[in-house]
Amino acid sequence: MPLTVKALFYDVFGTLTDWRSGVARAAEAVLKPKGFALDFGAFADAWRGEYQDALEEVRSGRRPFCKLDGLHLRNLEITLRRFAVTGLGDAEKHELNLAWHRLDAWPDVRPALVRLKRKFLLAPVSNGNISLMVDLARRNGFPWDAILGAEIAGDYKPKPRVYLAAADAFDLRPADCMMVAAHSNDLSAAAALGLRTAHIARPNEHGPGRGEVAPRVPVDFAVTSLGELADKLGV
Amino acid sequence: MPLTVKALFYDVFGTLTDWRSGVARAAEAVLKPKGFALDFGAFADAWRGEYQDALEEVRSGRRPFCKLDGLHLRNLEITLRRFAVTGLGDAEKHELNLAWHRLDAWPDVRPALVRLKRKFLLAPVSNGNISLMVDLARRNGFPWDAILGAEIAGDYKPKPRVYLAAADAFDLRPADCMMVAAHSNDLSAAAALGLRTAHIARPNEHGPGRGEVAPRVPVDFAVTSLGELADKLGV
Repeated sequence: MPLTVKALFYDVFGTLTDWRSGVARAAEAVLKPKGFALDFGAFADAWRGEYQDALEEVRSGRRPFCKLDGLHLRNLEITLRRFAVTGLGDAEKHELNLAWHRLDAWPDVRPALVRLKRKFLLAPVSNGNISLMVDLARRNGFPWDAILGAEIAGDYKPKPRVYLAAADAFDLRPADCMMVAAHSNDLSAAAALGLRTAHIARPNEHGPGRGEVAPRVPVDFAVTSLGELADKLGV
Repeated sequence: MPLTVKALFYDVFGTLTDWRSGVARAAEAVLKPKGFALDFGAFADAWRGEYQDALEEVRSGRRPFCKLDGLHLRNLEITLRRFAVTGLGDAEKHELNLAWHRLDAWPDVRPALVRLKRKFLLAPVSNGNISLMVDLARRNGFPWDAILGAEIAGDYKPKPRVYLAAADAFDLRPADCMMVAAHSNDLSAAAALGLRTAHIARPNEHGPGRGEVAPRVPVDFAVTSLGELADKLGV
């Protein structure tokens, strides 16, 4: 099948940004001065560990759609209790929740996006809300054409609606769009709808040596950096 | 009231782009080679003249929301009949409808947006759909943080939902957002919801000497170029 891709859609947490280091850093900055000596990497893992269950509440229809910031805040409460952290005010919890808005990109991302923008429309198709995506773009210089994803669709990946709403926003057929992610479940959901797919290995996403080094599903491209994908797409 | 503005929202047709010249040019390019010797400026005016009635069908609830591209296409059919233009195929009508994706910005816009982006979040809050906004941004170098507006809100300006959905997407109160437009009705609707407002004079929007030279409603700023607004906002 010839490649007719006109737009590249990106997963963001893990694929473009190092959420574990960023969240651990923010937790340390807020909690350490208060005397909480935690394993902050484990804290980040535990917070992220609540993610799928919270999304499933919305995907299943048991909860109406709300921004990911709201789900992150609920998951933070759970995680604070688990780590026996008490005494935080609402403003401090809100500040800590903004950790997700202040993640750093993996170093290959920004230069490759600038190259890829010459030939393709670029948008995040993330479960993160618009303001979160905008803050990450400002911080890391992501040159998006638009912010697509969960908030536009009113549902969370891997529900089909999220991928299809993104293609529709660009007036494109699914086959003209490529989902780029470090997670096989994201790519298999996109592929089932006819999108093309690219897997980027992020071997350290969940800490050193803990990440998907290769796709577990068929993909159009499997690369180890976004620059390698740009090479393969001829930009 | 102190100015706490963090985001600037822009009207696009007329305020940032010269729709009349662009549409007249596209109509001439498609129709003149087919032997139709029209007043192409008048053709553009007539096409745009159908705009508010079409929006009102959606705003009133008589028609479900559809992208502005779809309304533009219906309005094109009406306009072609009025100018006794016959024999165009669907592909030619679609091509002509893309005139709205290929408008040129007024010359003050791009340099001022680059300045304003240093201090403010920037987004179009237009009735145009996402793909239309993306094409105009690519053509003219508009450095948007996100594409907000009608398609996000599922309704058309000046319905309150469109302005409020834009503020909400950025996690901002209406008072922290400023609507920038060349049209008093757009600004009065925004002001009624608590947004700050800036009027830009576009005296030639509807042809030489036919445009709003000054606001007909109270506004926070009234300027003759986007650069002047940047000056006044201290960037």
